[in-house]
Amino acid sequence: MTEIGLTRALVRRSRAVSYAGLPEDIRALVRQCVLDTVGVTIAGVDDPLVRILAEELAGQGGGAIAGTPGLALRLPVRAAALLHGTAAHALDYDDVNMAMPGHPSVAIMPAVFALAEERGGDGRAIIAAFAAGYEVACRLGRALAPGHYDGLGFHATGTVGTFGAAAACAHLLGLDEEQTLHAFGIAATEAAGLKSMFGTMCKPLHAGRAAEAGLLAARLAARGFTARPDSIECRQGFAATHSPDFNPEAALADPADGWHIRANLFKYHAACYLTHAPIETARSLRMLHNLDPDNIAAITLRVDQSTDRICNIQAPQTGLEAKFSMRLTTAMALAGTDTSSLETYNAATATDPALAALRDRVVIDFQQGWPHTRAELDLRLKDQTTLHAMHDAGIPAPDVAAQGVRLEGKFLALVSPILGEARAQALMAAIARLDGLADLSAITALWGPLPAAQQAA
Amino acid sequence: MTEIGLTRALVRRSRAVSYAGLPEDIRALVRQCVLDTVGVTIAGVDDPLVRILAEELAGQGGGAIAGTPGLALRLPVRAAALLHGTAAHALDYDDVNMAMPGHPSVAIMPAVFALAEERGGDGRAIIAAFAAGYEVACRLGRALAPGHYDGLGFHATGTVGTFGAAAACAHLLGLDEEQTLHAFGIAATEAAGLKSMFGTMCKPLHAGRAAEAGLLAARLAARGFTARPDSIECRQGFAATHSPDFNPEAALADPADGWHIRANLFKYHAACYLTHAPIETARSLRMLHNLDPDNIAAITLRVDQSTDRICNIQAPQTGLEAKFSMRLTTAMALAGTDTSSLETYNAATATDPALAALRDRVVIDFQQGWPHTRAELDLRLKDQTTLHAMHDAGIPAPDVAAQGVRLEGKFLALVSPILGEARAQALMAAIARLDGLADLSAITALWGPLPAAQQAA
Repeated sequence: MTEIGLTRALVRRSRAVSYAGLPEDIRALVRQCVLDTVGVTIAGVDDPLVRILAEELAGQGGGAIAGTPGLALRLPVRAAALLHGTAAHALDYDDVNMAMPGHPSVAIMPAVFALAEERGGDGRAIIAAFAAGYEVACRLGRALAPGHYDGLGFHATGTVGTFGAAAACAHLLGLDEEQTLHAFGIAATEAAGLKSMFGTMCKPLHAGRAAEAGLLAARLAARGFTARPDSIECRQGFAATHSPDFNPEAALADPADGWHIRANLFKYHAACYLTHAPIETARSLRMLHNLDPDNIAAITLRVDQSTDRICNIQAPQTGLEAKFSMRLTTAMALAGTDTSSLETYNAATATDPALAALRDRVVIDFQQGWPHTRAELDLRLKDQTTLHAMHDAGIPAPDVAAQGVRLEGKFLALVSPILGEARAQALMAAIARLDGLADLSAITALWGPLPAAQQAA
Repeated sequence: MTEIGLTRALVRRSRAVSYAGLPEDIRALVRQCVLDTVGVTIAGVDDPLVRILAEELAGQGGGAIAGTPGLALRLPVRAAALLHGTAAHALDYDDVNMAMPGHPSVAIMPAVFALAEERGGDGRAIIAAFAAGYEVACRLGRALAPGHYDGLGFHATGTVGTFGAAAACAHLLGLDEEQTLHAFGIAATEAAGLKSMFGTMCKPLHAGRAAEAGLLAARLAARGFTARPDSIECRQGFAATHSPDFNPEAALADPADGWHIRANLFKYHAACYLTHAPIETARSLRMLHNLDPDNIAAITLRVDQSTDRICNIQAPQTGLEAKFSMRLTTAMALAGTDTSSLETYNAATATDPALAALRDRVVIDFQQGWPHTRAELDLRLKDQTTLHAMHDAGIPAPDVAAQGVRLEGKFLALVSPILGEARAQALMAAIARLDGLADLSAITALWGPLPAAQQAA
């Protein structure tokens, strides 16, 4: 550590972010995060957990200030951040950063958007605020790794995400250094979320709670509410209570690419992120070799041992269980099943006899100390040909523009069935113009549900 | 542990509480908790931290459903619980339970009252719900001690208090066992609060956040929101993430008096609870021996070492600092200064030359392994007489009725200057009739501020 504490160091870095100072690829990545988050939210708002929370919050009333993609409901800013964040994570199809480790956009964007809808922040201010919050979340995550998430079992999306949302909102509100320190302190004492809740409705709730808590922290600090200024590093502070591995230097060290957002990972398969590398190896071999699953004699998948506890359901029966079965998703990809479609993950797919037979021939050879995101696949065909593929889903796409094209495809596939092709295209175009927007109305006017008349048509 | 997990065991105990089954002294203690909480809240709502939060929440709008003692502002239930809980703890003059360890009433009562204001719960249902939540908070606190609060530094009022509020609200809502398990799970993943925030506005915020989070947990569970049913004891669950000392047996063991609320401790001095025993020793010697401070030659105070980090400010300059100075509060009690009055704790008292001189003659002889709440005082007078007193502020009052009389005096002293003597008496009488009230309107109609016309008169 240098002469100043980590909290102040993070606050200074966060406040130093400006739109003018952002490289163009960082701006593009923020737009991609926004586009992808809007898409998965619109696709996710029919989930029962979103309906339950929306009913609860709608019943509380309040100003119709800020919205959630896919819903007509407008709520006060705090409730809007809670609902939007929860809805955005409902499908678990949103972006990931392994430094955090968790889901940065669903904690940060709903808070920033709610605040901007209330105050009329322009696109450039929103992009800068998002970028500032994103880096804070990842830097703090690095300082607490591995004990925070892996060791103890806190869900960084909920905990570290609260700091990201607070930093982003403080940035958008233009808080000074001392106010931002208070905002971080309030965030520190609000932050919560347990990894053991994975598989329940509480996992998406963590994103919403982080967005809401970070927003409240910044808004209270703006009004003069106080916390201590060294909330992360102080004795019995956030770090000491939440990780056995506090390493402030890891937070201050610049990532290899200069910005953590350059390592943002988007999901293209609607399953657990750790099934992505197995799926990609299978997809690539199927495409390169025009594979017929019937010609496959043996399938060996190599992944890190840690994935066994996360996504190795042996014989999934439901769509949700299918998302957490490396063997089934590998079989699906070998058979050409669309792993990117939400509709794919249902009981029929999970229990399809042909897929199950292929799944049962996948032998997993667990490795020690591999990146969680790496997979190798060896196939032996009936003619004794052997095929090999490797993929690391932890390596970000090298070409931001190409990634953008792929994300547009994902967005349209998710959103067009709901809003119609023309509206989905218009919404995508509005988000692409974010930097030039004076406020969010061009986006929020398009992201709501179709009027009943159009739905009927 | 028995065959069922701690979460389910606590849920069953909580659901088994009924008004009919409550001993009369438990009902009386709940009424005392309510009376005392209302009193300290009315006395605390002028604090800047309450004003800041009230402005923020009022700006969000919503239904005028539930109130906060001392304020005209009525808010949606979730916001009301947040504001009421925060305001109730603003003065740090509210009740304490060393099993939790923390402030049970300010986490539980605001949630229960907000819910009852919305749904019209009667007094008996409110008393039973409060009692159920109180026991859950203390039992869970016992299961996590000492590592949760002392060791790691979580603020149990915020963390364990969330479970207390959730249990109480689940009780009032009549949730079944499975729903209540989900409510506990949602509470587990929302619960937060750091002890390192003591001395900032965040400390009272913890009580409000606990009340709000517990309320939300129960309401979402009632609507079908899911969490895991073993949230406390599961791998990487609430206990594993929040204490190195998980001891479920300690939660299940009945306290010596059968009910944890029988060990509830009320504050009669408007200073840190750990200054109470020193104050009581000094008060008793002054009263018994008609002491003149000028005749005291030497003052030795013996307390546990742990108090040194909590309330041993050497030369306080402000009223807030005075509350955390054992030496000054002991000197105040020896000199006959009113330690129960909020007005006493100001910069003038903190820096009064005569009190400071007496304070500087207090020598603290720290002990190892004493109860935090115990003090011994030895005085040597100028005529070489020696006087000795001992007090343990951790021992609850043996006579509930006598405690009630003392609390009525505290309530009237706090509330009469604000609401007038007649209104304060009427409010006190309404709370005394809680068991027979069909709803809370008889109480809430009296607890708001005086109309401007009456204030002017």
